[in-house]
Amino acid sequence: MLEKKHLKAFKKIVGEENIYDDKAHMIAYSYDATRTRYEPDAVIFPRHEEDVSAILTYCNNHKIVITPRGAGSGFTGGALPANGGIVLALEKHMNQIIEIDLENMLAIVQPGVINMDLQKHVEELGLFYPPDPASEQYSTLGGNVSENAGGMRAAKYGITKDYVMALRAVRANGDVIRAGKRTIKDVAGYNIAGILTASEGTLAVITEITLKLLPKPAYASSYMAVFPTVEDAMNAVFKSLASGANPVAMEFIDSLSVKAIKQKLGVVLPEEAGALLIGDVDGNVAEEVAFQIETLERSFKENGCSDFQVATEAKEREAIWYARRNVSQCVTLYGSKKLNEDISVPRSKLPQALERIYKIGEKYGFSVPCFGHAGDGNIHVNVMVDGSQEKELEDGHKAIEEIFQLVVDMGGTLSGEHGIGLSKAPFMSIAFNEAELALFHAIKEAFDPNNILNPGKMAL
Amino acid sequence: MLEKKHLKAFKKIVGEENIYDDKAHMIAYSYDATRTRYEPDAVIFPRHEEDVSAILTYCNNHKIVITPRGAGSGFTGGALPANGGIVLALEKHMNQIIEIDLENMLAIVQPGVINMDLQKHVEELGLFYPPDPASEQYSTLGGNVSENAGGMRAAKYGITKDYVMALRAVRANGDVIRAGKRTIKDVAGYNIAGILTASEGTLAVITEITLKLLPKPAYASSYMAVFPTVEDAMNAVFKSLASGANPVAMEFIDSLSVKAIKQKLGVVLPEEAGALLIGDVDGNVAEEVAFQIETLERSFKENGCSDFQVATEAKEREAIWYARRNVSQCVTLYGSKKLNEDISVPRSKLPQALERIYKIGEKYGFSVPCFGHAGDGNIHVNVMVDGSQEKELEDGHKAIEEIFQLVVDMGGTLSGEHGIGLSKAPFMSIAFNEAELALFHAIKEAFDPNNILNPGKMAL
Repeated sequence: MLEKKHLKAFKKIVGEENIYDDKAHMIAYSYDATRTRYEPDAVIFPRHEEDVSAILTYCNNHKIVITPRGAGSGFTGGALPANGGIVLALEKHMNQIIEIDLENMLAIVQPGVINMDLQKHVEELGLFYPPDPASEQYSTLGGNVSENAGGMRAAKYGITKDYVMALRAVRANGDVIRAGKRTIKDVAGYNIAGILTASEGTLAVITEITLKLLPKPAYASSYMAVFPTVEDAMNAVFKSLASGANPVAMEFIDSLSVKAIKQKLGVVLPEEAGALLIGDVDGNVAEEVAFQIETLERSFKENGCSDFQVATEAKEREAIWYARRNVSQCVTLYGSKKLNEDISVPRSKLPQALERIYKIGEKYGFSVPCFGHAGDGNIHVNVMVDGSQEKELEDGHKAIEEIFQLVVDMGGTLSGEHGIGLSKAPFMSIAFNEAELALFHAIKEAFDPNNILNPGKMAL
Repeated sequence: MLEKKHLKAFKKIVGEENIYDDKAHMIAYSYDATRTRYEPDAVIFPRHEEDVSAILTYCNNHKIVITPRGAGSGFTGGALPANGGIVLALEKHMNQIIEIDLENMLAIVQPGVINMDLQKHVEELGLFYPPDPASEQYSTLGGNVSENAGGMRAAKYGITKDYVMALRAVRANGDVIRAGKRTIKDVAGYNIAGILTASEGTLAVITEITLKLLPKPAYASSYMAVFPTVEDAMNAVFKSLASGANPVAMEFIDSLSVKAIKQKLGVVLPEEAGALLIGDVDGNVAEEVAFQIETLERSFKENGCSDFQVATEAKEREAIWYARRNVSQCVTLYGSKKLNEDISVPRSKLPQALERIYKIGEKYGFSVPCFGHAGDGNIHVNVMVDGSQEKELEDGHKAIEEIFQLVVDMGGTLSGEHGIGLSKAPFMSIAFNEAELALFHAIKEAFDPNNILNPGKMAL
């Protein structure tokens, strides 16, 4: 419960109508995509940067903790008020596309703008914003920047950080910071925009984002390649890319997931299909698309691909993507609860990594269907457990810990795109040594000495 | 002068043969490309990361300041020991290409590797390291990362930061930090590699660099476009890029520079040539190169281009580039001393920015030939003064300050690629407000509480 005097102070800043502390709203703002719940003491809807600055100044002076929140669609609890205090909900008022600068090919947006709204808006202007997290229909760009969201198109086009040109943000003490410019190059001062990206709301509250846009390529095709085994597909991933292919996306579906989509969706696939690679290629000219398709087909077939399909018409392309888009819901075939992690390894380690992950699953008796963004080494690993059995859940978490250790030992990372948040915080010491964790703490303290911003996340 | 006990301690770490404190060597390590001189008390050549860690631990305990140095080719004094102490020279022993990982398309190098040595090495393997600062023949990759070096190919391929996948670095207290991975995606922990890039040796000493490599495109052409005026050329830059062109490079030569290359090099150009745009395009297929050339030619001609030449053969391509490669030495026609700054503005502001820069030159009576990387908004502005006249030098610096103010007012930056170092440190308060400067100080203190690493640089 927030003290009355604090509530009064916040009301004075944002107005009566932009703060809630009733039970119903506290419940509504208590969860995210992890389905874990923590109720805040109040939810505040800032109208603009000045509100954010005034709220943070007050919170800093009174040591009130604050959790910035976009759409609450994160998978690791980044937007959960794990220590109570204020949820600063940015999606209500701070959700405007401020400017599309066609001459410099960039967009300036408020943090609450939904990813897909920006994508659609700029595509109508012949431009292109590539980062496309699976949550693109509802996740906000502020959340995307805070988590450094990836997506399907990362194989060719990179991730959110590759598009952040500049940020405005408010530090814990209320200071408004401008970081970066509308320029391609800027090496004056420390790269503040760089460190705020992926900082999960622990260093500052982002109030404005300048994003690079690209010209929209005129040609594109989709492909689907069938492999007899997961190992063949994983070899094909890194060998095709090392041979010069540069697909927009290269998504992977493993044997268990193939079985699930056949059974649940009735998708018809060749008998021998043990794994699929699905993706897009694009280009300014048709010949570039043809070059990419030829390079992929040649390399895939050298690595065991038994069937390779290409589609250029929208409807056929959608048919190719149908399996990938719906695989996530199909794997529930193997268990009522999905412990879903998004590990990432150097691409050449994918064959070995998956082999070992399946073995960990076998050891505990769990099915571990895997799929995801193989083109950038990022795989969604799903340990399927019976959610009603305490023992299964416990073993599931042990399996996850073993998987993290394995991934880190192979030069990989705890998270390719979901972030650390609360869920992965206990595993930080697997990935980082004491010196590195000490440096994270020192940086956190430099930005936010009273630890009011999203405390408890990233093991901070 | 370094106290005897310190000298003895350092000798114990690196051996007698890897430390100098004689006058001749102190002079040799007292300068960089700024031609300003500061003699260190000693120069140490660490053999490996363990040496770096032991040296920094000792320096931190005894508050001895230390300046990391690569080739000393920087333009802003980043490698100058402005406060004496130790120069840590990394080019002597820590200059090996450790690994080219063909399967994951990345290179792992020590900081003292020369940029061009890496470029040549990977091109023999069919791969491509795009960042090509003008100093590529002698500058080191450690220096490139510390300054976030740009280059000609930044228009399409970005700058050093876009290739840094991971770093190993030693903090002031001697802690070895691993930042980043051999993975495309990694969102675990703060983006330490991101903030170390462009930090000018003030936060840590980089000991190992993992750099992304690309497949080498098979096709390329060069182009040269003649414009009657600078304004036409500058309009053509942002309009062609906004219309979908994506050239590798788009370099600019202004009227004064055109006059200089005609006079000094005898380059034959059309009578009306008031400005040139010179660059490359590339692609995996010939049609992509043709598409880029057509897009550029159409847009350039819509914006006043009077002559457009294309070359595909190596010799002709070199002829097109001859003017650009030699322009820097030609502009000495206008003054014995060149006050050379590398401002960067949003591309659409280039026409206006140049117009105003010339006016500032006129006001003081200086010629200000400009050329550079127009494709990314980064222009080398050269205020030409008589170096023997104290008054001219003083006025020259006043003109530079006005130019910086103008550029910042237009949304630009003090430095596109040379960094802040010593030379631009006095101008930091033009570009950053008190809150931003306070944040830089807080970050500096988090990494290096005793301020032993490259003190005085970046106004820190």
